[in-house]
Amino acid sequence: MHAALNRLADELPDGALITDSDIIERYRRDSAADPHAGTPVAVVRPAGTADVQQVLRWAAEHHVAVVPRGAGSGLSGGADAVDGSVVLSTERMRDIRIDPATRTAVVQPGLTNTEVKRAAAQHGLWYPPDPSSIDISSIGGNAATNAGGLCCVKYGVTGDYVLGMEVVLADGTALRLGGPLLKDVAGLALTKLFIGSEGILGVITELTLRLIPAQPPASTVVALFDSVADAANAVVAITAEIRPAMLEFMDHASINAAEDHMRMGLDRSARAMLLMQSDAPGAAAAEVATMVSNCEKCGATEVFATDDPAEGAAFTAARRGMFGAVEKLGSLLLEDVGVPIPQLPALVTGVEDIADTCDVQIYMVAHAGDGNTHPIIVYDPTDPDATDRAERAFARIMELAIGLGGTITGEHGVGRLKRDWLPNQLGDDVMALTRRIKDALDPQGILNPGAVLR
Amino acid sequence: MHAALNRLADELPDGALITDSDIIERYRRDSAADPHAGTPVAVVRPAGTADVQQVLRWAAEHHVAVVPRGAGSGLSGGADAVDGSVVLSTERMRDIRIDPATRTAVVQPGLTNTEVKRAAAQHGLWYPPDPSSIDISSIGGNAATNAGGLCCVKYGVTGDYVLGMEVVLADGTALRLGGPLLKDVAGLALTKLFIGSEGILGVITELTLRLIPAQPPASTVVALFDSVADAANAVVAITAEIRPAMLEFMDHASINAAEDHMRMGLDRSARAMLLMQSDAPGAAAAEVATMVSNCEKCGATEVFATDDPAEGAAFTAARRGMFGAVEKLGSLLLEDVGVPIPQLPALVTGVEDIADTCDVQIYMVAHAGDGNTHPIIVYDPTDPDATDRAERAFARIMELAIGLGGTITGEHGVGRLKRDWLPNQLGDDVMALTRRIKDALDPQGILNPGAVLR
Repeated sequence: MHAALNRLADELPDGALITDSDIIERYRRDSAADPHAGTPVAVVRPAGTADVQQVLRWAAEHHVAVVPRGAGSGLSGGADAVDGSVVLSTERMRDIRIDPATRTAVVQPGLTNTEVKRAAAQHGLWYPPDPSSIDISSIGGNAATNAGGLCCVKYGVTGDYVLGMEVVLADGTALRLGGPLLKDVAGLALTKLFIGSEGILGVITELTLRLIPAQPPASTVVALFDSVADAANAVVAITAEIRPAMLEFMDHASINAAEDHMRMGLDRSARAMLLMQSDAPGAAAAEVATMVSNCEKCGATEVFATDDPAEGAAFTAARRGMFGAVEKLGSLLLEDVGVPIPQLPALVTGVEDIADTCDVQIYMVAHAGDGNTHPIIVYDPTDPDATDRAERAFARIMELAIGLGGTITGEHGVGRLKRDWLPNQLGDDVMALTRRIKDALDPQGILNPGAVLR
Repeated sequence: MHAALNRLADELPDGALITDSDIIERYRRDSAADPHAGTPVAVVRPAGTADVQQVLRWAAEHHVAVVPRGAGSGLSGGADAVDGSVVLSTERMRDIRIDPATRTAVVQPGLTNTEVKRAAAQHGLWYPPDPSSIDISSIGGNAATNAGGLCCVKYGVTGDYVLGMEVVLADGTALRLGGPLLKDVAGLALTKLFIGSEGILGVITELTLRLIPAQPPASTVVALFDSVADAANAVVAITAEIRPAMLEFMDHASINAAEDHMRMGLDRSARAMLLMQSDAPGAAAAEVATMVSNCEKCGATEVFATDDPAEGAAFTAARRGMFGAVEKLGSLLLEDVGVPIPQLPALVTGVEDIADTCDVQIYMVAHAGDGNTHPIIVYDPTDPDATDRAERAFARIMELAIGLGGTITGEHGVGRLKRDWLPNQLGDDVMALTRRIKDALDPQGILNPGAVLR
């Protein structure tokens, strides 16, 4: 192995291959902090597509597993190293080119989402997808997981903005798919197939992203409810009439955690909170009125509206900051289950039951307009029994979502943490088809083995 | 073969299998009217998914090709029969169920697009995708080609509204993919892979479609230009500021054909026309002003705005009716090429050159906001030389689009008419990957052989 690694190091730019064990340690896990992550033999940090091709050709020749890695902010263990693998980090691939005429950005995978947004904003353009990890997650990782966020309810997910890509296959072939074309149905939808494929089909080395005109500042509505069902009814009523730019949910525990953390003056006795925004030019006032009246009709105990962007941003920050707020309380297991919107009350109630039965603390925030929820399980990792109960709750929540016609992951990905529940959701026939496609593209199974598929 | 067909007939509902040659004749071609279409041995009209499974199991056993067919309104020969095949028409599969709570429609493939829209409208909901064939094309065919339309520039294409499907694979296995979930990243993006796959990977037997709240009536702007470049500049300027609900282009020949056909009072000397709409609630007046001022800034010779829906509908009808208007003038070869928007003037000029060189009449209409154009070649099919020149022009336009970084098909599909140009656009490596996926899903090659791939 040593000789083979030396050969690879010779083929790559100076310093691109790292075998120092202290540095390697930092590349073993993503933000799920999975204790079962393996140890790679090396980390490579390619400077461009040609380097990625070299790595994969080498890996194919030596039958070495390659674990692609963006910023390591993933929450499902999708970038956890495998023993004996090479971790391929895209962190050095940071070029970006904005074309205002086609309203596209051509970006390498290593930039953060915020960096892409900022470059687009310099041309009065906007890249909408906004996972909460916006400042730390890489655009390549966003594409590999089809990341969502808060604005999806109106503006869609990462995949809706990817017009084309360059991707390197398991044998080192680099393909160009799509481009700055808004409509293109020539051949199979291969670009779409690589989106959300979590590194098991290829390594994305460039993305062509669709940009749209920047939106005006949003108006914000906050509503409190004394029942989750009332809040869920308000979600259904509002989305039947308008498309809000944000429609977030926080449960009783989350409201209190946010209040502990940020002192917003929220009613600590409330059972549910909705945080909504409208950015419709010329229609924000009308949309705010629609949100307010539907919340009131559905029994909100308190409704507050503002078109001060700073005030709105404070509420949004409280919502985005939830993981940080509860992180202080213990280790986290972050859920990402989704259900059809009418099942939201059943999911929230079911999660409360699981918290009781498993004797764990669960905080629930949700992209309610999409039915995508994040029950956050907080536990003490030094207590083996508490860890076990947390893991049991993690499993039960997925089973609950599947039973409600939902999904085990709305935007974080399957990775390694949720892999064993995927067959329960998809069924044997869909798993078999998935395996057929994986085998067709990566017959040696060297690309991110153990992620998504066993 | 006769005995085998009898066995299949026995397995299907009465009358589902047709061998009458007069009836079969009507199922040989789609609307491309390809003279090279083959003759099937039978037409089957399944009543549901179980019947489709029977047909495919039977076909796999007897190595018989199956050509899936929606309404036969395709324009690329994607539903052209193959000699000895069975044509599988979905026309009898017409169930629809609207769920206002999840804002979804669960539909069988045989309904027309308009029928889906109408059912959604009964609940105050809207299914946006609107190919010009809206009244005659099937929703299953729309999904199989990832059909576009006029509203795509703001609202996206068919695939953006497909949340889930039931699909029958080549071996008769029926799979359920996705469902009424707005965000779901569990496993590979298989739903997306079947969208636009033109019947070569499976037969779609049910779709779960995302619906959105109905939009208010649109305001309309019509602008005339004495140069194509000026019109294209206006497109770039407008789309940098707002997202119009429609942004259509007609060239000099099309303006005159529309005027012959409908007497709108258009200036026959104009070289280009833009037809634009805004449906933004509360912001239509502002968007109309943006469109008008940008057209004027870019040198429009005449600009007309109206918020009378009837007047707007008359212009839209003139645009939608273009195929009908020129159909009287001869046989048509319909192009569907797309380019990055800044290449629009080069494409229009290039097409004019091709019309001159090949001595054919070409009318150009375009979904300009998407860069997706429809040069319509009109020729006399009884004149072999004219037919030959038309076919040469058809090929040259695709080569022109590829040379401009564009696509041979923006929304109609590759089918059989454009198949031989697909490798020129995609390249050998992408074709090889396409073939690997096709072979993984349909190892016998019985699903729509000759479409997309040779």
